[in-house]
Amino acid sequence: MKTPYYAVIFTNTRTRGDNGYAAMAAEMEELAKTQPGYLGFESARDGLGISVSYWESLEDITRWKANTDHRLAQERGIKDWYSWYKIRICRVEREYEFSKE
Amino acid sequence: MKTPYYAVIFTNTRTRGDNGYAAMAAEMEELAKTQPGYLGFESARDGLGISVSYWESLEDITRWKANTDHRLAQERGIKDWYSWYKIRICRVEREYEFSKE
Repeated sequence: MKTPYYAVIFTNTRTRGDNGYAAMAAEMEELAKTQPGYLGFESARDGLGISVSYWESLEDITRWKANTDHRLAQERGIKDWYSWYKIRICRVEREYEFSKE
Repeated sequence: MKTPYYAVIFTNTRTRGDNGYAAMAAEMEELAKTQPGYLGFESARDGLGISVSYWESLEDITRWKANTDHRLAQERGIKDWYSWYKIRICRVEREYEFSKE
């Protein structure tokens, strides 16, 4: 990707049980892909969860945050799914890639 | 943490087998904590690995990258541990935190 672009680092710890989380997470990942300025998504969890989404601009991030379906997911996240989270909005200044392929 | 500060997002896929990786990863995490400007570290893996380290300035990141022991670890990473990685240097513009505690 051509820098600069933007990243949202979403670090979190889950509550116990699924409570509809996995289905909604998959749905939100699919919905994010259709949004203007979406560049990509990466996610990993082993206890701590770290998800990073990438966007062309801060405006794209603001628009995605305000998306109606996403807002409902955010509300359920606070109510049911996360015991803690931290969201960081970042400007990606440089990047390096290595591949053995 | 007080914004702005800096984040290094290190996304990677591992080769098979440990090959000394876990011990070196733990050692580098301890060493990073002693470096000037170090603010924190978060890591998760399930197939894809995502590690994020946080720093006060770009200069701190450059210095950590050039650290002799860290450079040896980077060389082993390319030789033995990673089949792919991407490193993104980011400026953290804003952050939000939520906690049920």
